[in-house]
Amino acid sequence: MILGKIVGTVVSDIRNDGIAGASYLLVDKCNQRGEKKNDIIVALDLVGAGYDEVVMIAEGSSARETEITLNKPMNAIIVGIIDLIDEMGQVVYKKY
Amino acid sequence: MILGKIVGTVVSDIRNDGIAGASYLLVDKCNQRGEKKNDIIVALDLVGAGYDEVVMIAEGSSARETEITLNKPMNAIIVGIIDLIDEMGQVVYKKY
Amino acid sequence: MILGKIVGTVVSDIRNDGIAGASYLLVDKCNQRGEKKNDIIVALDLVGAGYDEVVMIAEGSSARETEITLNKPMNAIIVGIIDLIDEMGQVVYKKY
Amino acid sequence: MILGKIVGTVVSDIRNDGIAGASYLLVDKCNQRGEKKNDIIVALDLVGAGYDEVVMIAEGSSARETEITLNKPMNAIIVGIIDLIDEMGQVVYKKY
Amino acid sequence: MILGKIVGTVVSDIRNDGIAGASYLLVDKCNQRGEKKNDIIVALDLVGAGYDEVVMIAEGSSARETEITLNKPMNAIIVGIIDLIDEMGQVVYKKY
Repeated sequence: MILGKIVGTVVSDIRNDGIAGASYLLVDKCNQRGEKKNDIIVALDLVGAGYDEVVMIAEGSSARETEITLNKPMNAIIVGIIDLIDEMGQVVYKKY
Repeated sequence: MILGKIVGTVVSDIRNDGIAGASYLLVDKCNQRGEKKNDIIVALDLVGAGYDEVVMIAEGSSARETEITLNKPMNAIIVGIIDLIDEMGQVVYKKY
Repeated sequence: MILGKIVGTVVSDIRNDGIAGASYLLVDKCNQRGEKKNDIIVALDLVGAGYDEVVMIAEGSSARETEITLNKPMNAIIVGIIDLIDEMGQVVYKKY
Repeated sequence: MILGKIVGTVVSDIRNDGIAGASYLLVDKCNQRGEKKNDIIVALDLVGAGYDEVVMIAEGSSARETEITLNKPMNAIIVGIIDLIDEMGQVVYKKY
Repeated sequence: MILGKIVGTVVSDIRNDGIAGASYLLVDKCNQRGEKKNDIIVALDLVGAGYDEVVMIAEGSSARETEITLNKPMNAIIVGIIDLIDEMGQVVYKKY
């Protein structure tokens, strides 16, 4: 899975995803310290992530392995909100 | 999912995709402001996207999760036309 | 799907793909004008593509969605021969 | 599969993965000598890997092919702890 | 599929792949002339490839489409040993 930071929202009315009320977030890939890479993807939010939070994203077919995304044309979902990242015994990211 | 901008059309008569009347569009990957990256892919259009529109693209096996693409050798489809992208509370892209 | 140009042939006798008489082509990824990127992949040819032709390639699990490749360890097939690519109303590639 | 070095731990309480007690590790991709590439991913640990160990990672849908990850939104798992890597007859990495 | 050159062996005792006696090789991605890219992956060998041979690798879920890898967490296998690569009518690689 990759790490990303929530930086915005994507609104799309004409869609073909079969998911009513889907919430698409703008996610910038980031490193273990939450530093953004300026490499944007769009991910479906299933955990209620908020701006500036670091999240874990499942990509590919794994993004369909939830009740909501089963058999949907979806290839990036937010799987978890990160609370803390430890690197070699040192806390390098902590949710504020 | 990734963002892309519609920049053209692809015509292919000798095909092996089993989709009659398939509409393939030329899509340039773009960032959240709709700025093109000069990184072209070809995607099947299922939503009627037009030139210069920013769209959301599903890649990989997820591209087969629609009635038309089920069990077809298809790995990139246009899932939605983007109306608006908000970045940190600011509108950075709006469909004209 | 990605675009590629046929640049050669790959011969392999000791194979594990379960496809008798498989024709593997050397494909250089290219842009919408057919300009090669010097980024080579190998793809199974199912449409009879010839040297210097621009083709559309399906990658990943989608490459198995044909009668010949079903349940085979194959992750790149040529899905269509491109006749014409139009970019913003201008023909940028045309099969000669 | 790719090689990576364990560099840390990721804690996430609000998750959508359906895996109780999942252990997510911070992995830096590395080369055959165990030299880190500063390219971080997050992988589920199923083999009890420790800090500074080089591991083999399965990505994509293959990450769901274990009892624990079956039908879970998981796309990177640690498949093996590397003991030794030999390059052209020379040992270039050895677990200490 | 991609091309790679066999450059070594990977030994891993603590594994989670369910494959007894699996032979993992160190593969450096290469171009059509067999020139290495210094971009290492690990692939399961099912064809008995030897050092310095150029091989064809299936990645992703396609790597599970063999009797040995069926339902295993495996995402890169060696599918064929390359005998000859022809580029625009000229032999650019030949197995010695």
